[in-house]
Amino acid sequence: MTKIHIIGLGLLGGSFALAIQRAKPDWIITGHDNNPGHLQEALVAGMISEHKVIPDKDTDVVILSTPVDSLYPLLTQTLDHVGTNTLIMDFGSTKAKICQQMADHPKRAQYLAVHPIAGTENSGPKAAVEDLFDGKVLIICEMEKTNLHLKGLAYDIFEVLNMKLRFMEPHDHDLHLAFVSHLSHISSFVLGKTVLDKMQDEKNIFDMAGSGFASTVRLAKSSPEMWAPIFLENKINMLEALDSYIRHLTAFRDKIAQDDVQGLFGEMREANKIRDILDLEK
Amino acid sequence: MTKIHIIGLGLLGGSFALAIQRAKPDWIITGHDNNPGHLQEALVAGMISEHKVIPDKDTDVVILSTPVDSLYPLLTQTLDHVGTNTLIMDFGSTKAKICQQMADHPKRAQYLAVHPIAGTENSGPKAAVEDLFDGKVLIICEMEKTNLHLKGLAYDIFEVLNMKLRFMEPHDHDLHLAFVSHLSHISSFVLGKTVLDKMQDEKNIFDMAGSGFASTVRLAKSSPEMWAPIFLENKINMLEALDSYIRHLTAFRDKIAQDDVQGLFGEMREANKIRDILDLEK
Repeated sequence: MTKIHIIGLGLLGGSFALAIQRAKPDWIITGHDNNPGHLQEALVAGMISEHKVIPDKDTDVVILSTPVDSLYPLLTQTLDHVGTNTLIMDFGSTKAKICQQMADHPKRAQYLAVHPIAGTENSGPKAAVEDLFDGKVLIICEMEKTNLHLKGLAYDIFEVLNMKLRFMEPHDHDLHLAFVSHLSHISSFVLGKTVLDKMQDEKNIFDMAGSGFASTVRLAKSSPEMWAPIFLENKINMLEALDSYIRHLTAFRDKIAQDDVQGLFGEMREANKIRDILDLEK
Repeated sequence: MTKIHIIGLGLLGGSFALAIQRAKPDWIITGHDNNPGHLQEALVAGMISEHKVIPDKDTDVVILSTPVDSLYPLLTQTLDHVGTNTLIMDFGSTKAKICQQMADHPKRAQYLAVHPIAGTENSGPKAAVEDLFDGKVLIICEMEKTNLHLKGLAYDIFEVLNMKLRFMEPHDHDLHLAFVSHLSHISSFVLGKTVLDKMQDEKNIFDMAGSGFASTVRLAKSSPEMWAPIFLENKINMLEALDSYIRHLTAFRDKIAQDDVQGLFGEMREANKIRDILDLEK
Protein backbone atom coordinates (compact mmCIF):
# COMPACT_ATOMS: atom_id res chain seq x y z
CA MET A 1 0.00 0.00 0.00
CA THR A 2 1.50 3.30 -1.09
CA LYS A 3 1.27 6.31 1.22
CA ILE A 4 1.42 9.84 -0.18
CA HIS A 5 1.60 13.04 1.84
CA ILE A 6 1.01 16.42 0.19
CA ILE A 7 2.01 19.71 1.79
CA GLY A 8 0.19 22.57 0.06
CA LEU A 9 -3.25 21.58 -1.23
CA GLY A 10 -3.72 24.34 -3.80
CA LEU A 11 -3.91 24.19 -7.57
CA LEU A 12 -0.94 21.84 -8.06
CA GLY A 13 -1.05 19.85 -4.82
CA GLY A 14 -4.82 19.45 -5.03
CA SER A 15 -4.75 18.43 -8.68
CA PHE A 16 -2.04 15.89 -7.89
CA ALA A 17 -4.24 14.42 -5.13
CA LEU A 18 -7.23 14.17 -7.46
CA ALA A 19 -5.21 12.54 -10.22
CA ILE A 20 -3.69 9.96 -7.87
CA GLN A 21 -7.11 9.17 -6.37
CA ARG A 22 -8.51 8.46 -9.81
CA ALA A 23 -5.60 6.30 -10.94
CA LYS A 24 -4.82 4.59 -7.62
CA PRO A 25 -7.94 4.51 -5.46
CA ASP A 26 -6.31 2.23 -2.87
CA TRP A 27 -3.39 4.56 -2.14
CA ILE A 28 -3.58 6.58 1.06
CA ILE A 29 -3.27 10.34 0.69
CA THR A 30 -2.73 12.56 3.72
CA GLY A 31 -1.81 16.24 3.65
CA HIS A 32 -1.62 19.69 5.14
CA ASP A 33 -2.17 23.29 4.15
CA ASN A 34 -1.20 26.33 6.24
CA ASN A 35 -4.32 28.15 5.08
CA PRO A 36 -7.16 26.83 7.33
CA GLY A 37 -9.80 27.66 4.69
CA HIS A 38 -7.90 25.75 2.01
CA LEU A 39 -7.35 22.83 4.36
CA GLN A 40 -11.07 22.68 5.06
CA GLU A 41 -11.90 22.85 1.34
CA ALA A 42 -9.45 20.03 0.62
CA LEU A 43 -11.00 17.85 3.33
CA VAL A 44 -14.55 18.57 2.12
CA ALA A 45 -13.52 17.77 -1.44
CA GLY A 46 -12.03 14.51 -0.22
CA MET A 47 -8.60 15.29 -1.63
CA ILE A 48 -6.98 13.83 1.47
CA SER A 49 -8.33 11.06 3.64
CA GLU A 50 -6.80 12.54 6.77
CA HIS A 51 -5.20 15.78 7.86
CA LYS A 52 -1.67 15.38 9.18
CA VAL A 53 0.73 18.26 9.70
CA ILE A 54 3.70 15.90 9.69
CA PRO A 55 3.82 12.82 7.45
CA ASP A 56 4.14 9.35 8.94
CA LYS A 57 7.68 8.02 9.02
CA ASP A 58 6.78 5.27 6.57
CA THR A 59 5.25 7.60 3.97
CA ASP A 60 6.44 6.61 0.50
CA VAL A 61 6.31 9.99 -1.19
CA VAL A 62 6.00 13.51 0.22
CA ILE A 63 5.04 16.28 -2.22
CA LEU A 64 5.89 19.89 -1.41
CA SER A 65 3.63 22.25 -3.32
CA THR A 66 3.96 25.59 -1.55
CA PRO A 67 5.55 28.96 -2.47
CA VAL A 68 9.21 28.54 -3.46
CA ASP A 69 10.60 30.49 -0.51
CA SER A 70 9.02 27.96 1.89
CA LEU A 71 10.43 24.86 0.20
CA TYR A 72 13.91 24.60 1.67
CA PRO A 73 12.87 24.77 5.35
CA LEU A 74 9.98 22.39 4.70
CA LEU A 75 12.25 20.01 2.84
CA THR A 76 14.90 19.82 5.55
CA GLN A 77 12.34 19.54 8.36
CA THR A 78 10.57 16.75 6.53
CA LEU A 79 13.80 14.90 5.72
CA ASP A 80 14.77 15.05 9.42
CA HIS A 81 11.52 13.39 10.29
CA VAL A 82 10.84 10.64 7.75
CA GLY A 83 12.55 7.28 7.40
CA THR A 84 15.15 6.30 4.83
CA ASN A 85 12.61 4.90 2.36
CA THR A 86 10.71 8.13 1.85
CA LEU A 87 11.12 10.23 -1.30
CA ILE A 88 10.43 13.96 -1.15
CA MET A 89 9.67 15.98 -4.29
CA ASP A 90 8.97 19.69 -4.63
CA PHE A 91 6.87 21.21 -7.43
CA GLY A 92 8.59 24.62 -7.30
CA SER A 93 8.99 26.80 -10.40
CA THR A 94 12.63 27.61 -9.61
CA LYS A 95 15.26 24.93 -9.17
CA ALA A 96 18.77 26.43 -9.00
CA LYS A 97 18.67 27.76 -5.44
CA ILE A 98 17.08 24.75 -3.80
CA CYS A 99 19.38 22.31 -5.61
CA GLN A 100 22.35 24.35 -4.44
CA GLN A 101 21.04 24.49 -0.86
CA MET A 102 20.53 20.73 -0.90
CA ALA A 103 23.85 19.89 -2.53
CA ASP A 104 25.58 18.68 0.63
CA HIS A 105 22.56 17.54 2.61
CA PRO A 106 23.19 14.08 4.09
CA LYS A 107 19.81 12.90 2.82
CA ARG A 108 20.15 14.49 -0.64
CA ALA A 109 19.46 11.09 -2.28
CA GLN A 110 15.93 11.13 -0.85
CA TYR A 111 15.07 14.35 -2.69
CA LEU A 112 13.97 14.72 -6.33
CA ALA A 113 13.74 18.22 -7.81
CA VAL A 114 10.86 18.41 -10.30
CA HIS A 115 8.74 21.07 -11.96
CA PRO A 116 5.45 20.19 -13.65
CA ILE A 117 4.77 22.61 -16.53
CA ALA A 118 1.13 22.77 -15.65
CA GLY A 119 -1.09 25.38 -14.10
CA THR A 120 -3.79 27.96 -14.58
CA GLU A 121 -4.23 31.52 -13.35
CA ASN A 122 -6.41 30.24 -10.52
CA SER A 123 -5.24 29.08 -7.11
CA GLY A 124 -6.44 27.15 -4.08
CA PRO A 125 -8.07 23.69 -3.80
CA LYS A 126 -11.16 24.82 -5.68
CA ALA A 127 -9.00 25.49 -8.74
CA ALA A 128 -7.69 21.92 -8.72
CA VAL A 129 -8.71 19.59 -11.56
CA GLU A 130 -7.82 15.91 -11.91
CA ASP A 131 -6.43 16.19 -15.44
CA LEU A 132 -4.13 19.18 -14.83
CA PHE A 133 -1.00 17.03 -15.29
CA ASP A 134 -2.31 14.85 -18.11
CA GLY A 135 -0.01 15.03 -21.14
CA LYS A 136 2.08 17.84 -19.62
CA VAL A 137 5.85 18.13 -19.43
CA LEU A 138 7.62 17.45 -16.13
CA ILE A 139 11.14 18.80 -15.83
CA ILE A 140 13.49 16.84 -13.58
CA CYS A 141 16.75 18.36 -12.36
CA GLU A 142 19.86 16.54 -11.12
CA MET A 143 18.16 13.17 -11.34
CA GLU A 144 21.54 11.45 -10.90
CA LYS A 145 21.64 12.68 -7.30
CA THR A 146 18.49 10.81 -6.28
CA ASN A 147 18.45 7.24 -5.03
CA LEU A 148 17.66 4.86 -7.88
CA HIS A 149 14.98 2.89 -6.06
CA LEU A 150 13.15 6.00 -4.79
CA LYS A 151 13.35 7.59 -8.24
CA GLY A 152 11.74 4.47 -9.69
CA LEU A 153 8.59 5.03 -7.65
CA ALA A 154 8.50 8.67 -8.77
CA TYR A 155 8.78 7.67 -12.43
CA ASP A 156 5.95 5.18 -11.97
CA ILE A 157 3.78 7.97 -10.60
CA PHE A 158 4.59 10.28 -13.51
CA GLU A 159 3.74 7.51 -15.94
CA VAL A 160 0.41 7.00 -14.19
CA LEU A 161 -0.20 10.75 -14.60
CA ASN A 162 0.76 10.52 -18.31
CA MET A 163 3.50 13.14 -18.00
CA LYS A 164 6.37 13.69 -20.45
CA LEU A 165 9.72 13.70 -18.65
CA ARG A 166 12.47 16.15 -19.58
CA PHE A 167 15.85 16.39 -17.88
CA MET A 168 17.63 19.67 -17.39
CA GLU A 169 20.33 21.31 -15.28
CA PRO A 170 18.89 23.60 -12.57
CA HIS A 171 20.55 26.71 -13.97
CA ASP A 172 19.29 26.06 -17.50
CA HIS A 173 15.84 25.38 -16.13
CA ASP A 174 15.68 28.69 -14.30
CA LEU A 175 17.05 30.70 -17.22
CA HIS A 176 14.65 29.21 -19.75
CA LEU A 177 11.68 29.44 -17.42
CA ALA A 178 12.48 33.10 -16.77
CA PHE A 179 11.92 33.79 -20.47
CA VAL A 180 9.15 31.36 -21.32
CA SER A 181 7.03 31.43 -18.17
CA HIS A 182 8.02 34.00 -15.57
CA LEU A 183 8.32 36.87 -18.08
CA SER A 184 4.83 36.07 -19.42
CA HIS A 185 3.45 36.53 -15.93
CA ILE A 186 5.13 39.90 -15.48
CA SER A 187 4.08 41.13 -18.95
CA SER A 188 0.53 40.18 -18.03
CA PHE A 189 0.53 41.59 -14.47
CA VAL A 190 1.93 44.87 -15.74
CA LEU A 191 -0.46 45.03 -18.70
CA GLY A 192 -3.36 44.67 -16.27
CA LYS A 193 -1.97 47.39 -14.02
CA THR A 194 -1.31 49.77 -16.94
CA VAL A 195 -4.86 49.44 -18.23
CA LEU A 196 -6.43 49.76 -14.77
CA ASP A 197 -4.36 52.86 -14.01
CA LYS A 198 -5.50 54.58 -17.20
CA MET A 199 -9.14 53.65 -17.37
CA GLN A 200 -11.26 54.64 -14.44
CA ASP A 201 -14.49 53.34 -15.93
CA GLU A 202 -14.37 49.59 -15.55
CA LYS A 203 -17.41 49.14 -17.75
CA ASN A 204 -15.39 50.64 -20.60
CA ILE A 205 -12.61 48.11 -20.12
CA PHE A 206 -15.11 45.29 -20.07
CA ASP A 207 -16.91 46.49 -23.20
CA MET A 208 -13.74 46.99 -25.19
CA ALA A 209 -11.83 43.97 -23.97
CA GLY A 210 -12.08 41.49 -26.81
CA SER A 211 -10.88 37.97 -26.35
CA GLY A 212 -7.39 39.19 -27.25
CA PHE A 213 -7.06 41.34 -24.15
CA ALA A 214 -8.62 38.64 -21.96
CA SER A 215 -6.05 36.12 -23.20
CA THR A 216 -3.05 38.42 -22.86
CA VAL A 217 -3.98 39.64 -19.37
CA ARG A 218 -5.18 36.27 -18.05
CA LEU A 219 -2.06 35.60 -15.99
CA ALA A 220 -2.57 38.92 -14.15
CA LYS A 221 -5.11 37.03 -12.07
CA SER A 222 -2.33 34.81 -10.67
CA SER A 223 -1.48 34.58 -6.99
CA PRO A 224 1.01 37.21 -5.70
CA GLU A 225 1.93 34.86 -2.84
CA MET A 226 3.14 32.24 -5.32
CA TRP A 227 4.79 34.60 -7.78
CA ALA A 228 6.69 37.18 -5.72
CA PRO A 229 9.02 34.47 -4.31
CA ILE A 230 9.56 33.02 -7.80
CA PHE A 231 10.60 36.39 -9.26
CA LEU A 232 12.96 37.07 -6.34
CA GLU A 233 14.48 33.59 -6.28
CA ASN A 234 15.08 33.76 -10.03
CA LYS A 235 16.19 37.39 -9.81
CA ILE A 236 19.27 37.38 -12.03
CA ASN A 237 17.49 35.61 -14.89
CA MET A 238 14.33 37.69 -14.39
CA LEU A 239 16.29 40.92 -14.69
CA GLU A 240 17.95 39.65 -17.88
CA ALA A 241 14.56 38.66 -19.34
CA LEU A 242 12.85 41.89 -18.28
CA ASP A 243 15.67 44.11 -19.53
CA SER A 244 15.55 42.31 -22.86
CA TYR A 245 11.75 42.68 -23.04
CA ILE A 246 11.91 46.40 -22.20
CA ARG A 247 14.67 46.89 -24.79
CA HIS A 248 12.58 45.17 -27.48
CA LEU A 249 9.48 47.17 -26.48
CA THR A 250 11.43 50.40 -26.71
CA ALA A 251 12.68 49.46 -30.19
CA PHE A 252 9.10 48.71 -31.26
CA ARG A 253 7.93 52.01 -29.77
CA ASP A 254 10.61 53.92 -31.66
CA LYS A 255 9.58 52.31 -34.95
CA ILE A 256 6.04 53.55 -34.37
CA ALA A 257 7.33 57.03 -33.49
CA GLN A 258 9.35 57.08 -36.72
CA ASP A 259 6.53 55.73 -38.93
CA ASP A 260 8.87 52.86 -39.80
CA VAL A 261 6.29 50.57 -41.36
CA GLN A 262 8.86 48.16 -42.82
CA GLY A 263 10.59 47.93 -39.46
CA LEU A 264 7.27 47.11 -37.78
CA PHE A 265 6.53 44.45 -40.39
CA GLY A 266 9.94 42.93 -39.69
CA GLU A 267 9.41 42.81 -35.92
CA MET A 268 5.96 41.27 -36.28
CA ARG A 269 6.96 38.71 -38.92
CA GLU A 270 9.73 37.55 -36.57
CA ALA A 271 7.22 37.25 -33.74
CA ASN A 272 4.80 35.36 -36.02
CA LYS A 273 7.25 32.44 -35.95
CA ILE A 274 5.97 31.63 -32.48
CA ARG A 275 2.97 30.09 -34.26
CA ASP A 276 5.11 27.27 -35.68
CA ILE A 277 6.50 26.49 -32.25
CA LEU A 278 3.19 26.53 -30.41
CA ASP A 279 1.70 24.35 -33.13
CA LEU A 280 4.58 21.81 -33.02
CA GLU A 281 2.34 19.22 -31.46
CA LYS A 282 -0.26 19.31 -34.21
CA MET B 1 -34.37 41.88 -51.38
CA THR B 2 -31.35 43.21 -49.52
CA LYS B 3 -27.99 43.41 -51.30
CA ILE B 4 -24.74 43.37 -49.33
CA HIS B 5 -21.27 43.93 -50.75
CA ILE B 6 -18.17 43.09 -48.70
CA ILE B 7 -14.71 44.40 -49.54
CA GLY B 8 -12.12 42.36 -47.70
CA LEU B 9 -13.15 38.73 -47.16
CA GLY B 10 -10.81 37.87 -44.30
CA LEU B 11 -11.56 37.05 -40.69
CA LEU B 12 -14.07 39.86 -40.10
CA GLY B 13 -15.53 40.27 -43.59
CA GLY B 14 -15.79 36.54 -44.08
CA SER B 15 -17.38 35.96 -40.68
CA PHE B 16 -19.87 38.74 -41.42
CA ALA B 17 -20.80 37.02 -44.70
CA LEU B 18 -21.29 33.67 -42.96
CA ALA B 19 -23.43 35.18 -40.20
CA ILE B 20 -25.67 37.04 -42.69
CA GLN B 21 -26.06 33.91 -44.81
CA ARG B 22 -27.26 31.94 -41.82
CA ALA B 23 -29.67 34.61 -40.60
CA LYS B 24 -30.89 35.89 -43.97
CA PRO B 25 -30.49 33.18 -46.60
CA ASP B 26 -32.39 35.20 -49.22
CA TRP B 27 -30.08 38.22 -49.08
CA ILE B 28 -27.57 38.61 -51.90
CA ILE B 29 -23.93 38.89 -50.88
CA THR B 30 -21.27 39.96 -53.37
CA GLY B 31 -17.71 40.91 -52.56
CA HIS B 32 -14.07 41.38 -53.40
CA ASP B 33 -10.65 40.72 -51.94
CA ASN B 34 -7.36 42.06 -53.31
CA ASN B 35 -5.63 38.82 -52.40
CA PRO B 36 -6.44 36.38 -55.25
CA GLY B 37 -5.96 33.35 -52.99
CA HIS B 38 -8.33 34.73 -50.38
CA LEU B 39 -10.87 35.64 -53.05
CA GLN B 40 -10.76 32.09 -54.36
CA GLU B 41 -11.15 30.66 -50.86
CA ALA B 42 -14.16 32.91 -50.22
CA LEU B 43 -15.80 31.80 -53.46
CA VAL B 44 -15.15 28.12 -52.76
CA ALA B 45 -16.54 28.53 -49.24
CA GLY B 46 -19.63 30.15 -50.74
CA MET B 47 -19.20 33.30 -48.67
CA ILE B 48 -20.20 35.42 -51.66
CA SER B 49 -22.54 34.41 -54.45
CA GLU B 50 -20.65 36.47 -57.01
CA HIS B 51 -17.33 38.26 -57.27
CA LYS B 52 -17.66 41.95 -58.05
CA VAL B 53 -14.83 44.44 -57.68
CA ILE B 54 -17.28 47.34 -57.55
CA PRO B 55 -20.68 47.04 -55.87
CA ASP B 56 -23.90 47.55 -57.84
CA LYS B 57 -25.32 51.06 -57.57
CA ASP B 58 -28.38 49.70 -55.76
CA THR B 59 -26.44 47.80 -53.12
CA ASP B 60 -28.01 48.38 -49.69
CA VAL B 61 -24.94 48.01 -47.53
CA VAL B 62 -21.24 47.98 -48.37
CA ILE B 63 -18.85 46.68 -45.70
CA LEU B 64 -15.19 47.69 -45.77
CA SER B 65 -13.08 45.16 -43.89
CA THR B 66 -9.52 45.84 -45.02
CA PRO B 67 -6.40 47.28 -43.29
CA VAL B 68 -7.12 50.72 -41.81
CA ASP B 69 -4.78 52.61 -44.14
CA SER B 70 -6.82 51.43 -47.14
CA LEU B 71 -10.21 52.49 -45.76
CA TYR B 72 -10.38 56.18 -46.69
CA PRO B 73 -9.57 55.77 -50.40
CA LEU B 74 -11.92 52.77 -50.63
CA LEU B 75 -14.65 54.68 -48.85
CA THR B 76 -14.52 57.76 -51.07
CA GLN B 77 -14.25 55.69 -54.28
CA THR B 78 -17.22 53.59 -53.25
CA LEU B 79 -19.30 56.61 -52.23
CA ASP B 80 -18.60 58.19 -55.64
CA HIS B 81 -19.98 55.12 -57.30
CA VAL B 82 -23.06 53.98 -55.37
CA GLY B 83 -26.53 55.56 -55.32
CA THR B 84 -27.99 57.68 -52.54
CA ASN B 85 -29.66 54.74 -50.80
CA THR B 86 -26.48 52.82 -50.07
CA LEU B 87 -24.92 52.73 -46.59
CA ILE B 88 -21.19 52.13 -46.25
CA MET B 89 -19.66 50.88 -43.00
CA ASP B 90 -16.03 50.18 -42.17
CA PHE B 91 -14.90 47.66 -39.55
CA GLY B 92 -11.59 49.43 -38.82
CA SER B 93 -9.93 49.31 -35.39
CA THR B 94 -9.15 53.05 -35.43
CA LYS B 95 -11.83 55.67 -35.85
CA ALA B 96 -10.47 59.20 -35.20
CA LYS B 97 -8.59 59.71 -38.46
CA ILE B 98 -11.23 58.38 -40.81
CA CYS B 99 -14.02 60.32 -39.08
CA GLN B 100 -11.95 63.46 -39.38
CA GLN B 101 -11.17 62.77 -43.06
CA MET B 102 -14.86 62.20 -43.73
CA ALA B 103 -16.10 65.20 -41.73
CA ASP B 104 -16.86 67.42 -44.72
CA HIS B 105 -17.54 64.76 -47.31
CA PRO B 106 -20.74 65.59 -49.23
CA LYS B 107 -22.00 62.02 -48.74
CA ARG B 108 -20.98 61.80 -45.06
CA ALA B 109 -24.57 60.80 -44.13
CA GLN B 110 -24.15 57.55 -46.10
CA TYR B 111 -21.24 56.44 -43.92
CA LEU B 112 -21.42 54.75 -40.52
CA ALA B 113 -18.18 54.33 -38.52
CA VAL B 114 -18.28 51.08 -36.57
CA HIS B 115 -15.83 48.73 -34.85
CA PRO B 116 -16.83 45.20 -33.90
CA ILE B 117 -14.89 44.08 -30.81
CA ALA B 118 -14.44 40.63 -32.22
CA GLY B 119 -11.53 38.74 -33.68
CA THR B 120 -8.96 36.04 -33.21
CA GLU B 121 -5.23 35.85 -33.91
CA ASN B 122 -5.95 34.17 -37.22
CA SER B 123 -6.62 35.88 -40.53
CA GLY B 124 -7.98 35.18 -43.99
CA PRO B 125 -11.28 33.58 -45.12
CA LYS B 126 -10.34 30.22 -43.60
CA ALA B 127 -10.26 31.86 -40.17
CA ALA B 128 -13.85 33.10 -40.55
CA VAL B 129 -16.56 31.59 -38.33
CA GLU B 130 -20.26 32.35 -38.45
CA ASP B 131 -20.61 33.15 -34.74
CA LEU B 132 -17.66 35.56 -34.48
CA PHE B 133 -19.96 38.55 -33.86
CA ASP B 134 -22.51 36.74 -31.69
CA GLY B 135 -22.92 38.51 -28.35
CA LYS B 136 -19.99 40.84 -29.01
CA VAL B 137 -19.82 44.61 -28.53
CA LEU B 138 -20.04 46.90 -31.57
CA ILE B 139 -18.78 50.43 -31.06
CA ILE B 140 -20.46 53.10 -33.19
CA CYS B 141 -18.89 56.54 -33.59
CA GLU B 142 -20.61 59.80 -34.59
CA MET B 143 -23.90 58.01 -35.20
CA GLU B 144 -25.65 61.41 -35.35
CA LYS B 145 -23.88 62.13 -38.64
CA THR B 146 -25.44 59.17 -40.44
CA ASN B 147 -28.78 59.29 -42.25
CA LEU B 148 -31.54 58.00 -39.99
CA HIS B 149 -33.07 55.64 -42.53
CA LEU B 150 -29.74 54.08 -43.54
CA LYS B 151 -28.74 53.73 -39.91
CA GLY B 152 -32.00 51.85 -39.28
CA LEU B 153 -30.96 49.11 -41.68
CA ALA B 154 -27.55 48.89 -40.01
CA TYR B 155 -29.13 48.53 -36.56
CA ASP B 156 -31.41 45.78 -37.89
CA ILE B 157 -28.35 43.91 -39.12
CA PHE B 158 -26.55 44.25 -35.78
CA GLU B 159 -29.66 42.96 -34.02
CA VAL B 160 -29.74 39.97 -36.35
CA LEU B 161 -26.08 39.35 -35.45
CA ASN B 162 -26.93 39.67 -31.72
CA MET B 163 -24.40 42.46 -31.13
CA LYS B 164 -24.38 44.88 -28.20
CA LEU B 165 -24.23 48.49 -29.40
CA ARG B 166 -22.05 51.07 -27.63
CA PHE B 167 -21.69 54.69 -28.69
CA MET B 168 -18.44 56.58 -28.36
CA GLU B 169 -16.59 59.61 -29.70
CA PRO B 170 -13.84 58.67 -32.18
CA HIS B 171 -11.05 60.12 -30.05
CA ASP B 172 -12.22 58.27 -26.92
CA HIS B 173 -12.53 55.09 -28.94
CA ASP B 174 -8.96 55.29 -30.19
CA LEU B 175 -7.52 56.19 -26.80
CA HIS B 176 -9.30 53.37 -24.98
CA LEU B 177 -8.56 50.83 -27.69
CA ALA B 178 -4.88 51.77 -27.58
CA PHE B 179 -4.78 50.62 -23.95
CA VAL B 180 -7.19 47.70 -23.99
CA SER B 181 -6.54 46.15 -27.39
CA HIS B 182 -3.62 47.59 -29.33
CA LEU B 183 -1.21 47.50 -26.37
CA SER B 184 -2.07 43.82 -25.76
CA HIS B 185 -1.01 43.06 -29.31
CA ILE B 186 2.32 44.83 -28.90
CA SER B 187 3.03 43.23 -25.51
CA SER B 188 2.39 39.88 -27.13
CA PHE B 189 4.34 40.47 -30.36
CA VAL B 190 7.33 41.69 -28.34
CA LEU B 191 7.09 38.84 -25.83
CA GLY B 192 7.24 36.39 -28.73
CA LYS B 193 10.24 38.18 -30.24
CA THR B 194 12.08 38.38 -26.89
CA VAL B 195 11.70 34.65 -26.27
CA LEU B 196 12.62 33.68 -29.83
CA ASP B 197 15.73 35.88 -29.72
CA LYS B 198 16.96 34.26 -26.51
CA MET B 199 16.16 30.63 -27.08
CA GLN B 200 17.70 29.02 -30.10
CA ASP B 201 16.29 25.58 -29.41
CA GLU B 202 12.65 25.74 -30.39
CA LYS B 203 11.95 22.36 -28.81
CA ASN B 204 12.91 23.89 -25.46
CA ILE B 205 10.37 26.69 -25.89
CA PHE B 206 7.70 24.20 -26.81
CA ASP B 207 8.45 21.91 -23.86
CA MET B 208 8.49 24.72 -21.33
CA ALA B 209 5.65 26.76 -22.69
CA GLY B 210 2.76 26.02 -20.40
CA SER B 211 -0.69 27.21 -21.25
CA GLY B 212 0.23 30.53 -19.60
CA PHE B 213 2.83 31.39 -22.22
CA ALA B 214 0.59 30.19 -25.03
CA SER B 215 -2.19 32.47 -23.83
CA THR B 216 0.02 35.52 -23.31
CA VAL B 217 1.80 35.18 -26.64
CA ARG B 218 -1.26 34.19 -28.69
CA LEU B 219 -1.71 37.60 -30.30
CA ALA B 220 1.88 37.45 -31.60
CA LYS B 221 0.45 35.27 -34.37
CA SER B 222 -1.61 38.22 -35.65
CA SER B 223 -1.28 39.67 -39.13
CA PRO B 224 1.42 42.36 -39.54
CA GLU B 225 -0.47 43.73 -42.56
CA MET B 226 -3.51 44.49 -40.38
CA TRP B 227 -1.65 45.71 -37.32
CA ALA B 228 1.16 47.95 -38.60
CA PRO B 229 -1.37 50.47 -40.04
CA ILE B 230 -3.39 50.41 -36.80
CA PHE B 231 -0.34 51.22 -34.65
CA LEU B 232 0.69 54.04 -37.00
CA GLU B 233 -2.78 55.51 -37.37
CA ASN B 234 -3.25 55.45 -33.61
CA LYS B 235 0.32 56.63 -33.05
CA ILE B 236 -0.18 59.32 -30.38
CA ASN B 237 -2.30 57.05 -28.19
CA MET B 238 -0.04 54.06 -28.85
CA LEU B 239 3.01 55.99 -27.70
CA GLU B 240 1.18 57.06 -24.53
CA ALA B 241 0.10 53.47 -23.85
CA LEU B 242 3.54 52.00 -24.61
CA ASP B 243 5.40 54.61 -22.56
CA SER B 244 3.11 53.90 -19.63
CA TYR B 245 3.59 50.13 -20.03
CA ILE B 246 7.38 50.48 -20.20
CA ARG B 247 7.33 52.77 -17.14
CA HIS B 248 5.30 50.25 -15.15
CA LEU B 249 7.55 47.39 -16.29
CA THR B 250 10.63 49.31 -15.23
CA ALA B 251 9.08 49.94 -11.80
CA PHE B 252 8.31 46.23 -11.47
CA ARG B 253 11.85 45.37 -12.55
CA ASP B 254 13.33 47.73 -9.96
CA LYS B 255 11.24 46.14 -7.20
CA ILE B 256 12.71 42.76 -8.12
CA ALA B 257 16.22 44.22 -8.19
CA GLN B 258 15.66 45.70 -4.71
CA ASP B 259 14.09 42.53 -3.24
CA ASP B 260 11.02 44.65 -2.48
CA VAL B 261 8.61 41.82 -1.78
CA GLN B 262 5.89 44.07 -0.33
CA GLY B 263 6.14 46.34 -3.36
CA LEU B 264 5.75 43.34 -5.67
CA PHE B 265 2.72 42.13 -3.70
CA GLY B 266 1.20 45.61 -4.08
CA GLU B 267 1.71 45.70 -7.86
CA MET B 268 0.28 42.22 -8.32
CA ARG B 269 -2.70 42.75 -6.02
CA GLU B 270 -3.59 45.85 -8.05
CA ALA B 271 -3.31 43.83 -11.26
CA ASN B 272 -5.44 41.05 -9.73
CA LYS B 273 -8.42 43.44 -9.90
CA ILE B 274 -8.60 42.74 -13.62
CA ARG B 275 -10.29 39.47 -12.63
CA ASP B 276 -13.38 41.31 -11.36
CA ILE B 277 -13.66 43.24 -14.61
CA LEU B 278 -13.18 40.30 -16.92
CA ASP B 279 -15.69 38.33 -14.87
CA LEU B 280 -18.32 41.14 -14.95
CA GLU B 281 -20.51 39.14 -17.25
CA LYS B 282 -20.76 36.12 -15.00
